[in-house]
Amino acid sequence: MESISIVGVGLIGGSFALALRKAGFQGRILGVSSEATIQQALNQNVIDAGATLEEAAAQTEVLYLAQPISGILKTLDALAGCIRPEMFVTDAGSTKNKIVTRASEVLRKGQFLGGHPMAGKALRGVGAADADLFVGRPYVFTPLHPKDLETPRALSFRAWIERIGAVPIVLNPQDHDRIVAFTSHVPQLASTALAATLAAEPGPELSLQVCGPGAADMTRLAQSSFDLWQDILATNTPAIDRALELYIDKLQKFRQNLTNQYLSDQFDKASALASKFRR
Amino acid sequence: MESISIVGVGLIGGSFALALRKAGFQGRILGVSSEATIQQALNQNVIDAGATLEEAAAQTEVLYLAQPISGILKTLDALAGCIRPEMFVTDAGSTKNKIVTRASEVLRKGQFLGGHPMAGKALRGVGAADADLFVGRPYVFTPLHPKDLETPRALSFRAWIERIGAVPIVLNPQDHDRIVAFTSHVPQLASTALAATLAAEPGPELSLQVCGPGAADMTRLAQSSFDLWQDILATNTPAIDRALELYIDKLQKFRQNLTNQYLSDQFDKASALASKFRR
Repeated sequence: MESISIVGVGLIGGSFALALRKAGFQGRILGVSSEATIQQALNQNVIDAGATLEEAAAQTEVLYLAQPISGILKTLDALAGCIRPEMFVTDAGSTKNKIVTRASEVLRKGQFLGGHPMAGKALRGVGAADADLFVGRPYVFTPLHPKDLETPRALSFRAWIERIGAVPIVLNPQDHDRIVAFTSHVPQLASTALAATLAAEPGPELSLQVCGPGAADMTRLAQSSFDLWQDILATNTPAIDRALELYIDKLQKFRQNLTNQYLSDQFDKASALASKFRR
Repeated sequence: MESISIVGVGLIGGSFALALRKAGFQGRILGVSSEATIQQALNQNVIDAGATLEEAAAQTEVLYLAQPISGILKTLDALAGCIRPEMFVTDAGSTKNKIVTRASEVLRKGQFLGGHPMAGKALRGVGAADADLFVGRPYVFTPLHPKDLETPRALSFRAWIERIGAVPIVLNPQDHDRIVAFTSHVPQLASTALAATLAAEPGPELSLQVCGPGAADMTRLAQSSFDLWQDILATNTPAIDRALELYIDKLQKFRQNLTNQYLSDQFDKASALASKFRR
């Protein structure tokens, strides 16, 4: 990998550029974003120069699409006209099925490999970019065919993912979307629904006055903005619907068994898993 | 307040003793607990001496009941036979209605004032005791009658609550239990149910491999042990049932509206409250 363009220089795109540099990447890094973002990214030495998508596609061999999902889908459509056969295109979208399908439909040249770095933080934008954002975090690849991982360009890119400290995982796009509905999308909705419940009863004032440390924990994710989640909910609706159904079923079962042995067993099972999350 | 006995020298009781010392309390602090716990508390300089409940009731003017709820109820029964008229008894139980009612039934002498320090951490036991555990945290008093707060002994105790840095709040026991069902008990059950759901599907291995930072956040509380929660669930069942019902209703509404404007409004409301939790 000799050069790369980051399309969408926000928290993820900016962090990826910084992580590459920290891991020793010497090639040119272009940024495709709004004028204000490019200026900020240049000021922070996150990228070497700004470019249009067409310029990026002409000048660099790797494109890293780090926009919101709807932005990635639009970029794939736009790339159809300017992609070169030697190019490698990958993305960082939070759902994969729609993106991988679209890429396979519109990109007739080059190689596309879907990716999902499972990292993030409360702050957004290139101002929050962090070279260590991906360290120890899962980085899921979602090839349509296993051989997509073994091309020279894919091998080169995967080596950089390991160098930035991320933990590569391979799933097909459908499995990815089904699993993250449970591990990422339902946790978000559970937090937002809890905060929305507290806002209604006992209401904001009492909720804040009479709360233990747990309420703060359980509403941290609820600070997330809907404009990020809108795309996720729209592109993974059936899997989220199913995962949310199972979560609601579990809560109903809890409600029916508040004072008996069932809950004791569930606390044990939950505690065993929860403690593994923070080995 | 010239002397105090801590009944149940665990995380809360031990932290309260350390907090009093740090705030300048010069009086004697006795501990009523198992032999092993008393030895550990003595080694850590948390208490001055161990005692039986009868010795504590004979030698100190204030009793601080910091056991699990069922332990506090038993201690109140036992105290009925040895309480002196000049004594002040308070507790740190997580639900208040059952405790305050029992105290009013069995304690014919002295004064009882219910309390609930809304502080805690993942670790338990006197080994985790922390002089700063209550700093900035709500400390709810639940008097049966407002005048219970104005007796000389209550005023003296309340002054120590302020000196240890806690934020005193006054609620009647029913209101307390109704509110904490939302702000503490449902967050716990939401976390435990989420971890239990993930343990079933996609299962422990995939949940751990393919998760973002949100899943770790949302399952932290799920590490809690059932033996603490059993008492809370048993002594606040109707309020928890009602709060859980509203939370489930909210999740159902989310599920029916995954791709429309309703969720956008809910994210905004939730985010506004959630950000206030971490001013």
